[in-house]
Amino acid sequence: MTTSSASPGNGISNGVTLSSQNGQQENTSDVCVVGAGPAGVMLSALLARFGLKVELLDERPDKTAVGRADGIQPKTIETFQMLRVGDELFRTGVKVHDICMWQSSGTKSLRRLGREVHYPPSIVDVLQPYILLCHQGMVEGVFIDDLRRSGVEVQRSHSFKTYSYRDDEPQGALQISCDWAGHGEKTIFADYLVGCDGARSLVRRSIPDTYAQGTPHKSVWGVLDGELETDFPDLWSKTVVFSEEHGSVLIIPRERNMTRFYIEMKTSATPKDLGEEYVKQQARLILAPYHVEWRSVEWFGNYQVAQRVAARFSDASRRAFIAGDASHTHSPKAAQGMNTSMHDSWNLGWKLNLASRGLARDEVLLESYEHERKKIAHDLIDFDFEHANEIAAGDASRLAENFRKNTRFISGVGVEYGLNKLNLEDDGFSQGAAKPGCNLPPAKVTRYMDASPVDIQLDIPVLGQFRVYVVLGSEIGPSETSFMAALDSRLTSESSLIARVSEAAARSYQDKPRPIRIDDVYVRPERYTPVSQLITYSLITSADKKDFEIASLPPFLSKSGWTVYLDDVPNLDTQGRRCTDKWLGVLASNEVAIVTVRPDGYVGAVKRWSASESGAGESAANWLDGYFEGFLKVPTY
Amino acid sequence: MTTSSASPGNGISNGVTLSSQNGQQENTSDVCVVGAGPAGVMLSALLARFGLKVELLDERPDKTAVGRADGIQPKTIETFQMLRVGDELFRTGVKVHDICMWQSSGTKSLRRLGREVHYPPSIVDVLQPYILLCHQGMVEGVFIDDLRRSGVEVQRSHSFKTYSYRDDEPQGALQISCDWAGHGEKTIFADYLVGCDGARSLVRRSIPDTYAQGTPHKSVWGVLDGELETDFPDLWSKTVVFSEEHGSVLIIPRERNMTRFYIEMKTSATPKDLGEEYVKQQARLILAPYHVEWRSVEWFGNYQVAQRVAARFSDASRRAFIAGDASHTHSPKAAQGMNTSMHDSWNLGWKLNLASRGLARDEVLLESYEHERKKIAHDLIDFDFEHANEIAAGDASRLAENFRKNTRFISGVGVEYGLNKLNLEDDGFSQGAAKPGCNLPPAKVTRYMDASPVDIQLDIPVLGQFRVYVVLGSEIGPSETSFMAALDSRLTSESSLIARVSEAAARSYQDKPRPIRIDDVYVRPERYTPVSQLITYSLITSADKKDFEIASLPPFLSKSGWTVYLDDVPNLDTQGRRCTDKWLGVLASNEVAIVTVRPDGYVGAVKRWSASESGAGESAANWLDGYFEGFLKVPTY
Repeated sequence: MTTSSASPGNGISNGVTLSSQNGQQENTSDVCVVGAGPAGVMLSALLARFGLKVELLDERPDKTAVGRADGIQPKTIETFQMLRVGDELFRTGVKVHDICMWQSSGTKSLRRLGREVHYPPSIVDVLQPYILLCHQGMVEGVFIDDLRRSGVEVQRSHSFKTYSYRDDEPQGALQISCDWAGHGEKTIFADYLVGCDGARSLVRRSIPDTYAQGTPHKSVWGVLDGELETDFPDLWSKTVVFSEEHGSVLIIPRERNMTRFYIEMKTSATPKDLGEEYVKQQARLILAPYHVEWRSVEWFGNYQVAQRVAARFSDASRRAFIAGDASHTHSPKAAQGMNTSMHDSWNLGWKLNLASRGLARDEVLLESYEHERKKIAHDLIDFDFEHANEIAAGDASRLAENFRKNTRFISGVGVEYGLNKLNLEDDGFSQGAAKPGCNLPPAKVTRYMDASPVDIQLDIPVLGQFRVYVVLGSEIGPSETSFMAALDSRLTSESSLIARVSEAAARSYQDKPRPIRIDDVYVRPERYTPVSQLITYSLITSADKKDFEIASLPPFLSKSGWTVYLDDVPNLDTQGRRCTDKWLGVLASNEVAIVTVRPDGYVGAVKRWSASESGAGESAANWLDGYFEGFLKVPTY
Repeated sequence: MTTSSASPGNGISNGVTLSSQNGQQENTSDVCVVGAGPAGVMLSALLARFGLKVELLDERPDKTAVGRADGIQPKTIETFQMLRVGDELFRTGVKVHDICMWQSSGTKSLRRLGREVHYPPSIVDVLQPYILLCHQGMVEGVFIDDLRRSGVEVQRSHSFKTYSYRDDEPQGALQISCDWAGHGEKTIFADYLVGCDGARSLVRRSIPDTYAQGTPHKSVWGVLDGELETDFPDLWSKTVVFSEEHGSVLIIPRERNMTRFYIEMKTSATPKDLGEEYVKQQARLILAPYHVEWRSVEWFGNYQVAQRVAARFSDASRRAFIAGDASHTHSPKAAQGMNTSMHDSWNLGWKLNLASRGLARDEVLLESYEHERKKIAHDLIDFDFEHANEIAAGDASRLAENFRKNTRFISGVGVEYGLNKLNLEDDGFSQGAAKPGCNLPPAKVTRYMDASPVDIQLDIPVLGQFRVYVVLGSEIGPSETSFMAALDSRLTSESSLIARVSEAAARSYQDKPRPIRIDDVYVRPERYTPVSQLITYSLITSADKKDFEIASLPPFLSKSGWTVYLDDVPNLDTQGRRCTDKWLGVLASNEVAIVTVRPDGYVGAVKRWSASESGAGESAANWLDGYFEGFLKVPTY
């Protein structure tokens, strides 16, 4: 067992070949990911984009063909947009904008109780305020294609068996054993192992002390995907129908003209009762007097709800992790599973990259994965427990209330992390919506360089780097200029941690570069890392374009021409606010703010200074340096 | 020679096999398209989607690899969106939002005179108000992929030679002769022939009386695509730089970090002067004191500007047509060529489909192609002549003025057709922006069925059908209901032309169906033709959703549930108007309007009635029937 301070990465690739268990020569990979479901493909796609050597194993011979998860929440859509993937999902998926409730009781026949906007813009501030329905296999396909662009293929028919620390290298790689169907046992060496292998995760079982905490819920649910022949009018919303006599059905529209029905099964049921016919018959009874028949059925599944969270999300040495269903399970009815799972990976991916490159204080950065995501898993099962009960209980108004209370969380936009060394206490500096531990709020600005209106939260490509936004008011006068110059001089001087870690990052990315992808010729990643591989610097100003030239800014910004933005576009939020006002509240004349954003788009730290105060620029540089010092380090060679 | 009344289509496929010239058995195709440039691929893609049998020949062994046309105007972007193609262009292309002017003279060094929005929303009302730059081959690729989804492949290395009327069938197919490189002469039989074979069109030369009208312009221009090393700041706008001493350069940004330079060549030049080096040297001189060098050059071309329009766009029997550069040529500097060419095809495609199916009064519908597009070609060269002269003349303010005057036309949004039987005089009924002969103005509405906010101008897929929008106010009372019921009963009665042509269309599409495309499973074309293959019916109402159910509408609308729209979304135009107000001006209480839209998205006819007047519904039905009778007919069998 290595000690917990073991740091596998040092910025230099360990591409040495060593004898494997079966005598073959093998390379050591950076990360071995087990399971090519949504969590596994998302994680692998991120790591591969960041330049790590990834092995992605899956026991299945192909991606998910039908059924299973299907709901993509607004925040997940935003994440896909940040990654510039999933155009085909928008074109082919079904968009659910509202939620309908129907009810019948002994005295009253079935009637619509209400129809409401699912994600009202005043509550969920996001570009795409709907659930996008497309089945899990389509989502997996998007990332498998993305992995291919980074040069990685899923290794199919590979079943994980166990892992151990390599005997002869206690500080070295993990030795992962798996069974390759038809080829026998195979050993893979990797610095890290991540189990994205579902609720019955074998990786989780291989990690000590990860026993699941939680209470299995007794109810059993049937799920049916098919094309309907019906006169029921509300098939294209998320619809809950309660029948006092026959129970409830949850209706979800699907791509390809299909409809999904969720029906609770009798717990006293015989195996025969748990089938497709039972679900159909219940649906007919609940929806009467409307008629419903099936033209075709694509998938039927049933499952028992279990709400559980693993006790630990990693081993003690922070080499083996679990993510997705492997670390938490819950009911599928709020369309959370695929979304939460992918965001486990979204949280872990950039941290593993920095750790693998030897740039992280592992005890802070890697540890924060469990700290941040376990909180979310618990929030999720707490909500889910209530939500599933309300659907089963049959009280429409209580369900509606439960739903309303949790709307932001369900959308993913309201998934918030606590304060830690990555998410600093903001000391009242953020009087707007940009708050540490929260997603960066969407805002429209104009890119100076080409006059393009852009969504600033999506504009900078995801390269595993941080973003540092310098926010100025409407005047770039002498004090603002000297503030920026002081910042520039300190950030690039040898005395700053940022400069030294950036230098180490430059070496690391030179040695182990991000892959050259076919889309890079259009994306132009080099436009976003001209100063540092670790940080994209950006300026947001309300100044008029004609009042300054990019070339006249200090070097860290003039070299970053593609991320100089003009805050001159009214936002589309309900208050019509501009970016600066929305993020920070009012910025006083002569005030300069800095907003740091983590590679996963969460706000890290916010602070503001009066540019006219002497030493303000130096103070800002110290603060920024201190922030990064909390979780980054200069590797020792 | 057939007579001009010959109608090749009769709604029944002529898939008989006949001996061809070289003794082989051959099918007769509906349309043979020569040339797989932008006009040819657009036309073929449309015809193939509509279900016609298309042969697309191209003499080149592959699509355009580099250089040539590259500017996609706002209206063309909208057209692509209507066809649901080109996502990859938005992701990869460069977007030009503004236009910059620089000038130097003997006394003044080079300075920026101005920077303006290219397509101000108050002038060009369109969703995507920019020029999208991606080279011609990418555009061709989009449509070649689309053709593949319809089951059609480009026949490469096929050079058109000549065509004639088939000797033994004077009313029958055309006999088209071409040379298949390496395989010898090949004969193709087709009902129609369209030459999209460029400025030196051989198809045009085969059609009598198509001599080009116009004056070749003397100037010669060089075009250079490459990656630059420069400190000139305005590379990402459309930029014109005038130097009193050295002439002017037009700078256009390109995808893949490239920049295109257009430079006028000396007319007194020797061949050596007309090369890449001359253009580079001129650019250096004009841009001084800024430096400019080339990291790489992808393409260099030079051309002599010739402004010409063919005298005729078809032969006398309306069987052979020309489109694109084959019918008009002009300078490339306003980025019009590819756009105008594709819109020739956009105009011709649906007309050929209806004619081929025997549903058209050819002497009206096919004749309208030349009538409508020749006007545009003349408008274009008139503008182009001025525009090219102003660029050459070197007066920035005059160029800016010329540009401003023509902005709507350049964007494509302002390309307007005159009144004819397709575009009826509106008698003052349209007090808004929906005017016969003009593009349907963009507007946002909510689809009733799934509560999705949609862009109504894009929502109904292009299937070769018309759109008939019934527009109601905020109340669906008894008089509105009886208006719609009367319309329904007349439109479906045997006495109406619409019902009879729809019946013939149903037979025709049964016999010669639209292809089943892989994306149909998501697009669901059947949702848009439940009443007629010829017309998608649609309701737009300001009524509240809770005040009516789709099922309670009369059949022609209740069956059209996917095209029932609520006018409840404020528009994004500068005045923030809703759809009804924008299209029609104020609709009085009890007023009902009908807006017919042609398959190419142009408004055809607009009228309004007071629903409370007796016989209003019947009057509307008669008017609608009369409109379609102007250019459609029931085929005789």
